[in-house]
Amino acid sequence: MAPDAQAVIDDIKRTRDVADVNDFWKYLARDPKTLKRTWESIKEVMAPGALDPLVKEMVYLAVSVTNNCTYCIASHSAAARKAGMSDAMFAELVAVIGMANETNRLVTAYRVPVDPAFE
Amino acid sequence: MAPDAQAVIDDIKRTRDVADVNDFWKYLARDPKTLKRTWESIKEVMAPGALDPLVKEMVYLAVSVTNNCTYCIASHSAAARKAGMSDAMFAELVAVIGMANETNRLVTAYRVPVDPAFE
Amino acid sequence: MAPDAQAVIDDIKRTRDVADVNDFWKYLARDPKTLKRTWESIKEVMAPGALDPLVKEMVYLAVSVTNNCTYCIASHSAAARKAGMSDAMFAELVAVIGMANETNRLVTAYRVPVDPAFE
Amino acid sequence: MAPDAQAVIDDIKRTRDVADVNDFWKYLARDPKTLKRTWESIKEVMAPGALDPLVKEMVYLAVSVTNNCTYCIASHSAAARKAGMSDAMFAELVAVIGMANETNRLVTAYRVPVDPAFE
Amino acid sequence: MAPDAQAVIDDIKRTRDVADVNDFWKYLARDPKTLKRTWESIKEVMAPGALDPLVKEMVYLAVSVTNNCTYCIASHSAAARKAGMSDAMFAELVAVIGMANETNRLVTAYRVPVDPAFE
Amino acid sequence: MAPDAQAVIDDIKRTRDVADVNDFWKYLARDPKTLKRTWESIKEVMAPGALDPLVKEMVYLAVSVTNNCTYCIASHSAAARKAGMSDAMFAELVAVIGMANETNRLVTAYRVPVDPAFE
Repeated sequence: MAPDAQAVIDDIKRTRDVADVNDFWKYLARDPKTLKRTWESIKEVMAPGALDPLVKEMVYLAVSVTNNCTYCIASHSAAARKAGMSDAMFAELVAVIGMANETNRLVTAYRVPVDPAFE
Repeated sequence: MAPDAQAVIDDIKRTRDVADVNDFWKYLARDPKTLKRTWESIKEVMAPGALDPLVKEMVYLAVSVTNNCTYCIASHSAAARKAGMSDAMFAELVAVIGMANETNRLVTAYRVPVDPAFE
Repeated sequence: MAPDAQAVIDDIKRTRDVADVNDFWKYLARDPKTLKRTWESIKEVMAPGALDPLVKEMVYLAVSVTNNCTYCIASHSAAARKAGMSDAMFAELVAVIGMANETNRLVTAYRVPVDPAFE
Repeated sequence: MAPDAQAVIDDIKRTRDVADVNDFWKYLARDPKTLKRTWESIKEVMAPGALDPLVKEMVYLAVSVTNNCTYCIASHSAAARKAGMSDAMFAELVAVIGMANETNRLVTAYRVPVDPAFE
Repeated sequence: MAPDAQAVIDDIKRTRDVADVNDFWKYLARDPKTLKRTWESIKEVMAPGALDPLVKEMVYLAVSVTNNCTYCIASHSAAARKAGMSDAMFAELVAVIGMANETNRLVTAYRVPVDPAFE
Repeated sequence: MAPDAQAVIDDIKRTRDVADVNDFWKYLARDPKTLKRTWESIKEVMAPGALDPLVKEMVYLAVSVTNNCTYCIASHSAAARKAGMSDAMFAELVAVIGMANETNRLVTAYRVPVDPAFE
C-alpha cells in the first residue's frame, strides 16, 4: 500500500480504536486521494454534533436501503448496532423507510402540488 | 368527498390537532381505500416507540431526498421542524444524506464484497 | 426541422392518427438519429402483442412513477386513459406501485436471501 | 415465532393455499406489527378488482426491476408465472420496462416541459 | 437458438471481432426481437462519432454505478479497459460519480431553484 | 453571510474567474462546514488529471440525468458547454445515457449472472 494511503488507514484505526479497517477502506486505498478525502469527510460528517452518532448511522442506513447498496446496509447496520441500535429500533427504522418509499411514489403518481404553507 | 374518505380526513385532523390536512391527503381521498390504509399505516409507523417522532421524521426526509420527491421533502421538512429539528440539525442531516449517497456509489463502483464480519 | 426528423414526425402523426405530436418528439427532433431510433423502438415495443396496449401503458406509468419522471407520468397517464384506463383502474395501479416500492425496501433492509424455490 | 406473527403466517398459508410461505414473510416475522400491516395491505392491494391479479403482478415486477430488487424480481416473476404470464408476455413486459427507463432519461436530459394538453 | 437470434449473435461476433459474446446477449436471445433491436441500437449509439468510444464506455459505467447494476459495471468496466481506460482514469471517474451523487442530493435537500442564467 | 462561508465563496469566484457564484453555493452557505468541504472536494475531483474537465462534466451530467436532478442537469449542461461540449456531443451523450438506463434494466429483469471473464 502507498505510504499516503497507509497513513489514512492508520488514522482510521486510531480514531475508531479498531485492530483493522473494513474492506471499503482497503479498496479505496487504490486511490489514495479519494481515500484521504472520503475519510476526512466521513470523520467530519459523522462526528457527534447537533445529531448524535446513532441517529446519523440510522440515516445512513435509510439512504443505503433506498439506494439498495448491500455492502452499505451490512456495514452501517453493524455500526448502528455498535452505537446502540436495538432490535426494536431497527424494526421501527425499517418500517419508516418502507412507508416513506411508498408514500413518495403515491405523491408522485397523483402529481400533488406543494402546499403553499410548505413554501 | 365520499363519506368514508371524509371520516379518515376527520381522524387525521383530530389526531394531529390541525384545522386542515395537507394536499397529499386530499388527493388520496380520490381512492378512499388507499387513503384509509395509508393513514392507518402512517399513524402506526410514525407513533412514538423505540424511536422518537423527530428521528422518524428525519429518516423520512432522508428517504425523500434520496428519491428526489419535492413534495415529500417540503412536507416532511415542515413536520421535522415542528417536531423540534433546528437549523443545525437539518444541516447535519443533509450532510449525512449527501455522504451516504456518495459512499454508496463508491462501494458499488469498486464492487467491494461484504466483509465476513458483517455477515 | 431537418427533413429526416420531419419524416419521423409525420410517421408518428400518421401511425397515431393525431394532428400534432407531443413535445417529447419535438425536443428529440434536435437529434434526428435518436428520434428515428426511439420512435421505431416505441412503435415495435408498444404494439399489441401478447400484452394489450393498455397493460403496456400502465407498466410504462409504473416505471415512470418509480423514476419520478413528471413529464412521463403526465404523458403516459393521458395515453393510458385514451387506451381505456378508468379512475378505478388508475387507483388500483397506484396502490400496487406504492406497495411494490415499500416491500422492495423491506426486502432490501432485511437482506432476505432468494428462496431456493425461486432460483 | 411470536403467536401474533404465527397467526399472520397461518393466514397467508390459508389465503394462498400453500404449504409454506416464502422467506420474505419469515424475515418480517421478526417485527410482528410490520408483518401484520404489510400482509393486510398486500391482501387488499393485490386482490382482484378493476385490475386482474396478473396485471398487478406484472406492475409489481416492473417496479422491482426499476428498483433493482433481486429478491422481488425472483418472487414476483414466480407469482406472475403462476397467475398466467407466458414467455411471450414476460418478453414484452421486459421490453416495455426497458424502453420506459430509456425514454424517462431522454425526457429528463432534454428537460422537456409538460405539454399544456397533459395538465 | 432461433435462426433470427443466431444471426444477431453472429453479427455481434463479427462486428466486435470476438470468438464469443457475453451472457447478456445470450439471455436476450430468448426474445429475438428485443435482441435485434437492442443490438442495432447499441451498435449505432456506441459507434465513434462526436464522442470517442472510451468516453461513451465511461458514461455507460457512470450510469450503471448510479443504477447499481452489478453485471453492467463488470461488463462496461471490461469494455472501458479494452478501450484504453487506465487505473488513474478509473479512479478519477469513480471520484466524479461519487461527488455527483453527493451534490445531486445536497441540491435536492436544499431545494435550490434553477438560476435564471441556466434557463 | 458568515465570514468563513464568505471566504469560500470568494475562493470559488477567484478559482473560476467569475463575478458571482451560482445559487447552489449560496444555499450551501447556510452550513459553512459543508460549503467548505464540498467546494474543496469539487475543486480536487473536477481538476484536470487523467481525465479532462469536459469528460468530467459529461459524466456529472450522466449521473444527474439518471438521478433526475433538474438543477444539476441545468448547471452541469452549462458547465459542459463552457468546457467545449457541442450540440452533437450532447446528443450522443444523451443517447448513451438513455441506452445505458435501458440495458441496465434488461440485465436486471433477465437476472443475467456476471460472466466469469469479468470477475
